[in-house]
Amino acid sequence: MPDIGIIGAGVAGLHLGLLLRRHDIPVTLYSDRTPAQIAAGPLPATVAHHAPTLRREAALGVGFWPADTYGYTCHHHYVGGPRPLTFRGDFTSPSCGVDHRLVLPALTDVFQDRGGELRTGRVAADEVAGLAARHDLLVVATGRGPLADLFPRLDGPGSATAPRRRLCAGLYHGVAPAEPKGVTLSLAPGRGELIEIPLYSGHGHVTALLFECVPGGGADALCSLDQRAGPAAFDRAVRAELAAHHPTVFARTDPARFGLTGPLDLVRTAITPTVRADWAELPGGRYALALGDAHTVVDPIVGQGANTASYSAEVVADAVLDAPVLDELFCRRVARRRAEVVLGAARWSELMLRPPEHVRRLLGAMSECRSAADEFTDNFGRPDRQWRLLATPERTRAFLARHGVLPG
Amino acid sequence: MPDIGIIGAGVAGLHLGLLLRRHDIPVTLYSDRTPAQIAAGPLPATVAHHAPTLRREAALGVGFWPADTYGYTCHHHYVGGPRPLTFRGDFTSPSCGVDHRLVLPALTDVFQDRGGELRTGRVAADEVAGLAARHDLLVVATGRGPLADLFPRLDGPGSATAPRRRLCAGLYHGVAPAEPKGVTLSLAPGRGELIEIPLYSGHGHVTALLFECVPGGGADALCSLDQRAGPAAFDRAVRAELAAHHPTVFARTDPARFGLTGPLDLVRTAITPTVRADWAELPGGRYALALGDAHTVVDPIVGQGANTASYSAEVVADAVLDAPVLDELFCRRVARRRAEVVLGAARWSELMLRPPEHVRRLLGAMSECRSAADEFTDNFGRPDRQWRLLATPERTRAFLARHGVLPG
Repeated sequence: MPDIGIIGAGVAGLHLGLLLRRHDIPVTLYSDRTPAQIAAGPLPATVAHHAPTLRREAALGVGFWPADTYGYTCHHHYVGGPRPLTFRGDFTSPSCGVDHRLVLPALTDVFQDRGGELRTGRVAADEVAGLAARHDLLVVATGRGPLADLFPRLDGPGSATAPRRRLCAGLYHGVAPAEPKGVTLSLAPGRGELIEIPLYSGHGHVTALLFECVPGGGADALCSLDQRAGPAAFDRAVRAELAAHHPTVFARTDPARFGLTGPLDLVRTAITPTVRADWAELPGGRYALALGDAHTVVDPIVGQGANTASYSAEVVADAVLDAPVLDELFCRRVARRRAEVVLGAARWSELMLRPPEHVRRLLGAMSECRSAADEFTDNFGRPDRQWRLLATPERTRAFLARHGVLPG
Repeated sequence: MPDIGIIGAGVAGLHLGLLLRRHDIPVTLYSDRTPAQIAAGPLPATVAHHAPTLRREAALGVGFWPADTYGYTCHHHYVGGPRPLTFRGDFTSPSCGVDHRLVLPALTDVFQDRGGELRTGRVAADEVAGLAARHDLLVVATGRGPLADLFPRLDGPGSATAPRRRLCAGLYHGVAPAEPKGVTLSLAPGRGELIEIPLYSGHGHVTALLFECVPGGGADALCSLDQRAGPAAFDRAVRAELAAHHPTVFARTDPARFGLTGPLDLVRTAITPTVRADWAELPGGRYALALGDAHTVVDPIVGQGANTASYSAEVVADAVLDAPVLDELFCRRVARRRAEVVLGAARWSELMLRPPEHVRRLLGAMSECRSAADEFTDNFGRPDRQWRLLATPERTRAFLARHGVLPG
């Protein structure tokens, strides 16, 4: 039975670890922080888990926040402009937003309960050769630190040379959920996007506001404000941004309660979309496989990071179970099997950051065609399918024609 | 709904046509011969259909020769040499050999009954542009004639520059079936292989003998004998070859009855293993997709041609049903999704024609390990899996270790 080392204890590493432990495969998970440190640390992300990820978690017995209680069923859309558009799209199965500071420690506990080994401490680049000798396969499942550089960055689709957005993501009190409970995707053309997510955190049911700010577009002022020096001023600035550019979310704010849930519940960052090689040969003839952020980093505009990481973990686990030897052929097989979904998510994310004419037209068409909006929404759980519908103007035209929307 | 043109009415074209007609997609099948001409013509091949192909046919309602009546359940092996080996491997589900001169006309009838259009007549290379304008996608599913040349030949795994074997395939009376009923794979090192298949033909239950003759190895004399000038001499020569090199088959021959079932029931040929590009862009921006022999031609040594063609037809049908537009992205998707099985079959076939040391050792190991022989046999229906077990000495060692066979 192979022995697997996984560096990185995010969704990618934990889902892979749990999937492998289900088959009693020895797994060591290397994390730079203890579960307690993660739980007490800053907000790591605001990504919701879509139906396929939730199904995977339920099958693993770690569906601790069932979507029928904690989740949401639809996307509300607002597209600003001279004639604003509003429309809704429904999922066939709900999605669910839970603070990863709750999710990751809980999954780590289960991983250890099920015989997985956790080692805490940063892994330096020069320790990789030593780890490779200890394990039949080394999986790098962290985008942080120098380990992702084991895998050469690939130019081409999904990779960019600079961030397309500056991000300001935080958790807030004082935003009433939309009705039906759902995510709001609010687009302020030229300025950026707001993704508002009903999210369960240590503060209970709160609201994640993820501002995707076009650099120099105005909203990015939120990314520079010193929240700790002036929390009230920060909250006012956020609410003013909602008032001016995201009216359907603003309308649900309660001025008496609105505010960041705490100084750790805010992350300002910027992501350079990156696709890396799937694997690297290590000294001694063993292999390292890239997973999650070590493989592809996507902007969170359509919430694909954690979901793609979880999908990729399942592909890797299935391939490990089936492989006689964890060699280059194994790595190639993983690459081939996950490419459609992982690269589909990367390309779709990239497309939404710089929507071409046919995608902008799609938004207008969906505002008048509920079934098309439903399919678009449901495809947040099937990014490969979404990419196949949006990749070219002809494809999007055919998608809309299938829903009875003719070009006009 | 897209309109599909398919050139070639073998297993590849017919399975694709039937799969698409199940969803009422308009399909025109271009065949160079009428069903009656095929039925009355020379033996086209001696390939058995393995379980996945039989399941596909049953699902299409064309499982006219159920494997529990017409099929067989195992492979018998004989490996000649100073210390001959004999061993058996069982399928988990039976395979079935039926003369394609029965199968193809029957499937063509059903195709037409279900609304498919059949056009008979040779398609010349200069007619392709005209056909492309009539259909949203042109599928080339014949390796005969110049049309396969639309798809550039790819050097590399699965392609060779010359045939590795000369083939002498015929149907015979007077060979009693092995017990249990099965295929016999009889290896005469240096000389070639004999694949003996219980096959149902217009003559009833007969026996296909497929001699895979190493050029210059001696058995290839069978490929030059003038059968029509001397049928009795031909039969004697075949039986003498069995007597000298394939004793387990010879032992089941009845000298009073042994003989070719008819002059049309013999094909002598030689196959250059070839892998071609998956698709070609046609004038006018439409695409042609290669299927079956237009895509990969394999030596029949492990009986993969028709089975891989059927698998590939299913991938294409699924992709057509899912694609908004039959564009280059569609073609790329087909290529990616079928690569593992189709190229796995090609590489495995190539491996068996020039078995390296680890494959020769595997035969010896399987002669002493029934479970390994069963898995090897069952993988005739899963060529990608077979390739993954045999691709390297390390993999084959791990495969055997899983069955408790340690290197020794």
